[in-house]
Amino acid sequence: MNLLLLEDADFVAADRVVLQGRRLKHLHEVHRAEAGDSLRVGRLGGLMGSGTLEVLGAEQAEISVHFDQPPPAKLPLTLLLALPRPKMLRRVLQTVSAMGVPRLILLNSYRVEKSFWQTPFLDPGAVREQLILGLEQSRDTVLPEVVIEKRFKPFVEDRLPALAAGSLGLVGHPGDFPACPRAVEQAVTLAIGPEGGWIPYEVEKLQEAGLNPVQLGERILRVETAVTALLARLF
Amino acid sequence: MNLLLLEDADFVAADRVVLQGRRLKHLHEVHRAEAGDSLRVGRLGGLMGSGTLEVLGAEQAEISVHFDQPPPAKLPLTLLLALPRPKMLRRVLQTVSAMGVPRLILLNSYRVEKSFWQTPFLDPGAVREQLILGLEQSRDTVLPEVVIEKRFKPFVEDRLPALAAGSLGLVGHPGDFPACPRAVEQAVTLAIGPEGGWIPYEVEKLQEAGLNPVQLGERILRVETAVTALLARLF
Repeated sequence: MNLLLLEDADFVAADRVVLQGRRLKHLHEVHRAEAGDSLRVGRLGGLMGSGTLEVLGAEQAEISVHFDQPPPAKLPLTLLLALPRPKMLRRVLQTVSAMGVPRLILLNSYRVEKSFWQTPFLDPGAVREQLILGLEQSRDTVLPEVVIEKRFKPFVEDRLPALAAGSLGLVGHPGDFPACPRAVEQAVTLAIGPEGGWIPYEVEKLQEAGLNPVQLGERILRVETAVTALLARLF
Repeated sequence: MNLLLLEDADFVAADRVVLQGRRLKHLHEVHRAEAGDSLRVGRLGGLMGSGTLEVLGAEQAEISVHFDQPPPAKLPLTLLLALPRPKMLRRVLQTVSAMGVPRLILLNSYRVEKSFWQTPFLDPGAVREQLILGLEQSRDTVLPEVVIEKRFKPFVEDRLPALAAGSLGLVGHPGDFPACPRAVEQAVTLAIGPEGGWIPYEVEKLQEAGLNPVQLGERILRVETAVTALLARLF
């Protein structure tokens, strides 16, 4: 937790918050904080700044806060991701949030196991929890938008072309394709497949929607690693 | 497991192996393999190729194998990493191995908790297990060398200058430093700090040894994410 992220319900005055639960525990156990300590704080969806730990008890902490700084810029990116397996999904949500992706679309694919759609980690509250952890890690206050698209074909045929229009459309896909471009200056729509990759039909449909295959070399990376590697290379 | 990695002990003839245990279980449960299936195989430290599943039983599998392909090239890199916390260590070892890092040095730092050095995940067998998982993921056969340096100062003063000589020496460090270079053509020695970063004294000592600070932007990334992002950008 490199940023103490505050929500409206935490505020008891415009410049004062009271914390309990997970964040209080973290202050005690990880930060080993003491009264008087200074902390980096951010208001969810708003500015960042600094806080002073006025009172630190076993049951709650009181912090005076002051906001004066905008959060870091997001990447100019829409990320389409074939729904990963539940354990990977949690980590990917944190990574996506930490790296500054503003919009994530979780998409079905032939190689996404049906059972993955049943996971409780897809509940809005569970998704939000992982996104918050990513923001706390990287010091950001703005939650990414997460969209769930359970049907590949209608999404890719009917909605993706408009969504990708005007952006550089890319599909991360191993094979005999151009290397993923570096340091692009424009907005990007990037699709990353499931374990085992998109099937040829899906690559074709994504191409028809304006996304062109690019590769990262012959090594097969885990989804989380591929997401990080592609974003680090693109931006 | 995108590559079935074979060790000397698996061979019952030059072109035939017998498997039990984890890899057999994986063939049954994840690959849902059947007799006659073709598999990608690699010989630890040697070539890659293909295998045919001749016999698949509950207790063991017999596979005929044929090797004809070199493993992918490693990155021209020595990676110095402040020892991460045990849970992160396991994932980082897999990532490093999957991404093709040939040499990893796990180093002490002021912000590495002493208890991290006690973890059983640092036992050579446990390290090897994670490295193997990384090779199986990315399809490689050559284990990275992992060196453990429990004392920062003697290592950085006495051994690092020779080790980094002739390479581009870099320290990943947040702050007002040049951006990490992209697509370098030469060998690199890269040091990545612990959670919370190197302390100024350590950055100074690393600079004296020929490593210059570079940054990746204002977001603070987890160690595993930072490793992947820096390597994807550099190579």
